[in-house]
Amino acid sequence: MQVYTGDGKGKTTAAVGLAVRAVSHGLKVCFLYFHKEPECYEYGEFLSMQRLGVDIVGFAKKHPHFFNISREEVRKECLEALKFVEKSFEEKRYDILIMDEVNIAIRDGFLKEEEILALLSKKPESVELILTGRGAPASLVEVADLVSRVEEVKHPYKKGIQRRKGIDF
Amino acid sequence: MQVYTGDGKGKTTAAVGLAVRAVSHGLKVCFLYFHKEPECYEYGEFLSMQRLGVDIVGFAKKHPHFFNISREEVRKECLEALKFVEKSFEEKRYDILIMDEVNIAIRDGFLKEEEILALLSKKPESVELILTGRGAPASLVEVADLVSRVEEVKHPYKKGIQRRKGIDF
Repeated sequence: MQVYTGDGKGKTTAAVGLAVRAVSHGLKVCFLYFHKEPECYEYGEFLSMQRLGVDIVGFAKKHPHFFNISREEVRKECLEALKFVEKSFEEKRYDILIMDEVNIAIRDGFLKEEEILALLSKKPESVELILTGRGAPASLVEVADLVSRVEEVKHPYKKGIQRRKGIDF
Repeated sequence: MQVYTGDGKGKTTAAVGLAVRAVSHGLKVCFLYFHKEPECYEYGEFLSMQRLGVDIVGFAKKHPHFFNISREEVRKECLEALKFVEKSFEEKRYDILIMDEVNIAIRDGFLKEEEILALLSKKPESVELILTGRGAPASLVEVADLVSRVEEVKHPYKKGIQRRKGIDF
């Protein structure tokens, strides 16, 4: 199990890179994401991964911070994500399963640490699980095999530079 | 200009993710790498990027640490890489140009910091240049717009786990 955390840019893109690498070796890959609304932004990486045969599935796409949606609704969708992963584990549907921004779902109280730990205990040995998002809880770092923390040394948004299509999304 | 440095896993994979994102938006992308010998390892990400239309080009593939090759030969090939990039700048051939592991070429003395800085001064405003590799020199961090440092918090190789096809290469 791998964790990509920290405040710097490169966590999701590293997970995308892993997905791209794995499919080309014939592995079955699922990129599951939280709190991203592809209808608002065209996420270029989603289109490319899809073309390469990565399964992409989103849960709790609308985060209450940006959209008018109740916390209960978001919580419900996050639990559905866990059910989806649990089912994939049972059916050994994927070799690699990425849970992009799951740490945000935990940080914001939509998922509980113990729910993720319970899910991990059901993971087949053969499945590589990758969790991303800033603020990974200590309990997940503890049980992970690999943890990379992407530190922000410098970021252009701080200089007021806007997100650019093709580079930032 | 973006720099991905640090000792943790995720620098090259983040650059691959950026490349994959950019091509799907129709940008022209070049993934230029140093010190990787694809004939020895099948780098899955190279196959996938190629399928998506990313130009891939390698220089100084054989590093003296692993192969019987003279330092002069490696230096010569690294200078060819710089020439290639300079020409791409002149012809505005790419929107995004990744120089994967260029920091290693600098660290190991095959390229000089001032040579990279001179190259940067020729970069058209419109071109996004991405440099990866541990140990980015302070002079590059200084001039970069975005710097992410990927810290190794935990790494399974330390526990003696071997590189796995599709996950680590």
